[in-house]
Amino acid sequence: MRMERIDRVLYAMRERNLSQMIVSDPQSIWYLTGVDVEPYERLFALLLRADGKHVLFLNNLFHVEKTSLTEVWYSDTDDAVGMIAEQIETDAALGIDKVWPARFLIPLMEKCPQMVPVLASDCVDDCRAVKDGEEKELMREASRINDAVMEKVAAFVREGMTEKQVAAFIEQEYVKAGCSGPSFSSIVSFGKNAADPHHEPDDTVLQAGDCVLVDMGCKKDRYCSDMTRTFFCKKATSRQKEVHDLVRMANEKAESIIRPGVRFCDIDAAARDLITEAGYGSNFNHRLGHFIGQSEHEKGDVSSANTAQVKAGMIFSIEPGIYLEGDFGVRVEDLVLVTEDGCERLNRADKHWRIIG
Amino acid sequence: MRMERIDRVLYAMRERNLSQMIVSDPQSIWYLTGVDVEPYERLFALLLRADGKHVLFLNNLFHVEKTSLTEVWYSDTDDAVGMIAEQIETDAALGIDKVWPARFLIPLMEKCPQMVPVLASDCVDDCRAVKDGEEKELMREASRINDAVMEKVAAFVREGMTEKQVAAFIEQEYVKAGCSGPSFSSIVSFGKNAADPHHEPDDTVLQAGDCVLVDMGCKKDRYCSDMTRTFFCKKATSRQKEVHDLVRMANEKAESIIRPGVRFCDIDAAARDLITEAGYGSNFNHRLGHFIGQSEHEKGDVSSANTAQVKAGMIFSIEPGIYLEGDFGVRVEDLVLVTEDGCERLNRADKHWRIIG
Repeated sequence: MRMERIDRVLYAMRERNLSQMIVSDPQSIWYLTGVDVEPYERLFALLLRADGKHVLFLNNLFHVEKTSLTEVWYSDTDDAVGMIAEQIETDAALGIDKVWPARFLIPLMEKCPQMVPVLASDCVDDCRAVKDGEEKELMREASRINDAVMEKVAAFVREGMTEKQVAAFIEQEYVKAGCSGPSFSSIVSFGKNAADPHHEPDDTVLQAGDCVLVDMGCKKDRYCSDMTRTFFCKKATSRQKEVHDLVRMANEKAESIIRPGVRFCDIDAAARDLITEAGYGSNFNHRLGHFIGQSEHEKGDVSSANTAQVKAGMIFSIEPGIYLEGDFGVRVEDLVLVTEDGCERLNRADKHWRIIG
Repeated sequence: MRMERIDRVLYAMRERNLSQMIVSDPQSIWYLTGVDVEPYERLFALLLRADGKHVLFLNNLFHVEKTSLTEVWYSDTDDAVGMIAEQIETDAALGIDKVWPARFLIPLMEKCPQMVPVLASDCVDDCRAVKDGEEKELMREASRINDAVMEKVAAFVREGMTEKQVAAFIEQEYVKAGCSGPSFSSIVSFGKNAADPHHEPDDTVLQAGDCVLVDMGCKKDRYCSDMTRTFFCKKATSRQKEVHDLVRMANEKAESIIRPGVRFCDIDAAARDLITEAGYGSNFNHRLGHFIGQSEHEKGDVSSANTAQVKAGMIFSIEPGIYLEGDFGVRVEDLVLVTEDGCERLNRADKHWRIIG
């Protein structure tokens, strides 16, 4: 039980007039209780109640240490949703987190027609977005490993290698560094493949003059890292260098204005305006960044649509890019931790363009 | 577009008086349309309509070939749920598949208060449960590879190895065989670790006299395999042999009665009764089997609660086990494909107890 974290969620529920809420994201349940379960398709849920009588719903196949919560155990042949219906106030609003699937929510609504489901994920997700001391240290460590592996990648890559070879090397290095693995499928894109921001590594062979875009992250002690660097193999044209300089400056510009109180949309604009003024606005076709923690994409983003203000303790990515169809692509990405008066970059690896290979 | 598959789903919708349905499981969308997208947290949905005017909702970051469906594209800053609301009949029932998360479903209900959400996953899932010719061949191939790798595992395992070493070997062999990887985290359990059916491989060292439970599956061309064999290292006690014989006979007994028209609960009972009569009923604490296809756990199970009848073309696992706390565990699992008059075992690897190591 992590009472301080639970109290923050209960406070957020109170602000929304919610006396009860279903938390079903296993990462959120671990965050609030320390109970670590991978439920697969089975029901696993924490009912948070304003009166402090929280209830954990568990399948008897889950292996869990005794908790200080009320535990309701069910078997595969029980009506688990019915057991939730017995524990909630059925004539009130019920907060639901964002991942709870229709296979549980719709039957619960049918059993409790007076219950009003309210999407209340923010009550938990906004807490998770502001990292506490223990989490900050875990996030720093995951990014320290990522920086070190990125340097190894820069030294490893050679003309003639395939994207898949480089991706496999990254995974091996993460395991060697004590990570449970990558936090997402590594992106390694050579040459024109890099014009697709989400290209998957294939058998494309690296040739002199290609860009080498590497977007990678590891998971260490549950917490994620995520960074991107773009190199050039053997040589770079002046246009490649110019585009890279522009993307890096957009990244640095955005990072330079981060502090508590600044709006996310203004951080996005700081990078985007620079790229747009240089004539590449339409080639930067995604948001500037996303939140990260136990998952590599958590609730919250740095985009033109997000008018919320930055808070100290938040960790997110800053990743402008320019994608030139049929030619090449550049992205430069760091994770940043918001401090009281600015931000701490969790990634220290050099981000100027570099010739490798 | 796979019209034959879509027609089967539309037929099931008609039987439930549904004129419209949201399919959101990316595997189901691929199954019905051939469109292959990993949407992560973004909205990706197929609206099936009885009038044949199906609509695919896509984020402009997804890379998709032109389809013959109506396509609605949105960006990260658009109100994608609002775009669904514009395409549905808002005063009618709307089928929803089981995985659609609350973050889309609750806002859609709020936008369309007259719309009645109906959990209609079965319309798609029951189609996916009955494999067509192309799928059967893919499932056979994935299990052929699994059989071959299991033989390699039996030859590889040695006293003194750790569970993690064996699990890593399995993953390498799958990649060598052209698989995209394992279909689930391989279970390798030595000795008393095998008493936990879901034990995760750790640094436990194999000792003479330990059981070696290996539950593994690969993913080849999107389709999964899954099998379990239990070996003994160097030697086995007469009790270990007896328990293994009992589990194997329970597996064979269940497989012997499978044919179209038999109820799943009766297949479960065939194995469970044998184990219960021998005094181990409480040590077999999970269902007998689960369906499998593109996912290693698909809708449908072989359990005492499932009174449905078997149909030709279904593929599921038969996996009885006996788990003896603090001592050892045995499980024997095959995949079976139901034929017109019986079943075809997809796993051919020897399932008698064997001494290895």
